[in-house]
Amino acid sequence: MNASDSRAPLPAFADVQTAAARIAPYAHVTPVLHSRALDAMTGASLYFKAEHLQRVGAFKFRGACNAVWSLTAAQAACGVVTHSSGNHGAALALAAQLRGIACHVVVPDGAVAAKVAAIAHYGAQLHRCAATLAAREAMCAQVQATTGGNSVHPYTDPRVIAGQGTAALELLTAQPGLDALVVPLGGGGLAAGTALAMRALAPHCRLYLAEPAGAADGARSFAAGALDHAGIPDTICDGLRGTLGAINFEILRACDAQVLTVDDVQAVAALRLLWSRTKQLVEPSSATVLAAVLAHPAVFAGRKVGVILSGGNVDLDALPGLLAAG
Amino acid sequence: MNASDSRAPLPAFADVQTAAARIAPYAHVTPVLHSRALDAMTGASLYFKAEHLQRVGAFKFRGACNAVWSLTAAQAACGVVTHSSGNHGAALALAAQLRGIACHVVVPDGAVAAKVAAIAHYGAQLHRCAATLAAREAMCAQVQATTGGNSVHPYTDPRVIAGQGTAALELLTAQPGLDALVVPLGGGGLAAGTALAMRALAPHCRLYLAEPAGAADGARSFAAGALDHAGIPDTICDGLRGTLGAINFEILRACDAQVLTVDDVQAVAALRLLWSRTKQLVEPSSATVLAAVLAHPAVFAGRKVGVILSGGNVDLDALPGLLAAG
Repeated sequence: MNASDSRAPLPAFADVQTAAARIAPYAHVTPVLHSRALDAMTGASLYFKAEHLQRVGAFKFRGACNAVWSLTAAQAACGVVTHSSGNHGAALALAAQLRGIACHVVVPDGAVAAKVAAIAHYGAQLHRCAATLAAREAMCAQVQATTGGNSVHPYTDPRVIAGQGTAALELLTAQPGLDALVVPLGGGGLAAGTALAMRALAPHCRLYLAEPAGAADGARSFAAGALDHAGIPDTICDGLRGTLGAINFEILRACDAQVLTVDDVQAVAALRLLWSRTKQLVEPSSATVLAAVLAHPAVFAGRKVGVILSGGNVDLDALPGLLAAG
Repeated sequence: MNASDSRAPLPAFADVQTAAARIAPYAHVTPVLHSRALDAMTGASLYFKAEHLQRVGAFKFRGACNAVWSLTAAQAACGVVTHSSGNHGAALALAAQLRGIACHVVVPDGAVAAKVAAIAHYGAQLHRCAATLAAREAMCAQVQATTGGNSVHPYTDPRVIAGQGTAALELLTAQPGLDALVVPLGGGGLAAGTALAMRALAPHCRLYLAEPAGAADGARSFAAGALDHAGIPDTICDGLRGTLGAINFEILRACDAQVLTVDDVQAVAALRLLWSRTKQLVEPSSATVLAAVLAHPAVFAGRKVGVILSGGNVDLDALPGLLAAG
């Protein structure tokens, strides 16, 4: 949203704790699910944090809610602004609605109609623009200038990162003694938040980041030791097409996180397993974590593994094509 | 399975209580789910009993488990026999496996391969026959004669009915003060078991039976005051194609249950709502209950309504066709 994102102060575990208290009146404490069948299949004990049952159907509500309720009354009066037309946009819209403030969402032409409708459903004002980065940034700047609204980036905002960390905080509290956590990697908001919670609550736990092979800027960045945003994302995991943020990368490197890439065929196979075995209609991005566990039995077998099912916003009309992709 | 089914002694609430204690070590106490969105849409307060999260993915495990663990040691030594190649077959197979006894399942040619594979997965012995009622009865008789196995009918067996009643027993205990219960109606095992629990625990509660219009022998039987099995079932709700049992009809009439029919278009619309709003991958039969509530706002608006989501065994490969049916 603005060039200073990467120079924002790093959030810390205390911020995750503050976020947990702040969002408690609004967000669900999601359940932790088990599956005998998937345990047998992976040889691991899997603890699924069910963020698809979070409000708006994704963990994104945690970060958005924390950002909105962090605002001073004066800031809140001007509302919030974002350019995400995915789960973050809907999450920010609902969080703003709950606080009774304005939410402005910049929507590029060609955004998925169902997602835009969800954002409008939560009362956000839509600002349409052409589908280029330049047009989007120009429209964001214009909306901010006009409204004085507070910009809430989907994953580099420290308030958002701290909010996303509350999912792992809940999981590690409900299920002590985990050997590993596996979370999806897109822009790195959930991943970085998880790292903050894990370092404080379970320092011996290892963090694994499941990333689509078709959007593997994270894997390349870790390999190179520097951000590498080259390439155009090509994956069915629509929630993970964002490029890793600088602040997110910094937090993740500090906790020695390891990226595991999975291709779309692996993701769809894991998606089918999750649907048929757990009866939970998670979205493809959520399936990357199980795909990563299935692809690396030597890493996970015999271990207690917490995995975060990040969301459940599947476009039912696109579902037949999704199943065929496997 | 045999001609004496309709003359079996009627099960009572005490049998449901006994069943609950008997199956407790094996069956899940399934959660009760809520959805703000579906409450808003129906004007009712809906309490979804999540039987798709039961073992084998359906309430059927309750009745099968009760039947298997009701057997004396001598009876158990001969195993159990059934002709259901659907959820009941899989449920009986798992229950038998847990007790360490044989399970014989008569499978007519043309049975759904995925369901037959599930039954075999739980260790049952399959006995194939031609897809006619005569061939099926002959094969059942032959298997019983050879093995001495105990026949467990999918819905007219009083042990099965008592077992299915434990779902409503849990729901009414977890959620007192319900004004109505809505359950799917096929052969009437779940419906009759629910009636037994409801009469004892919530006598002021009304029981509604959601039945596919394409398999409406229940509605016709209630209208005529006598069983009417005419017609060939034609509905996508594959779990509800069985014809209402005599013992089931008797129990349901005694509690003044009311049948509400829903067509397949309504069922698919409700299925899409359940998938998108609750993220629970229930099967079409489960969607009939929400379809019935949506179709009768005058009956349900403003009331506390318990609905039983009966199962979640969806054939993923058939899913695109299912969505198109709406």
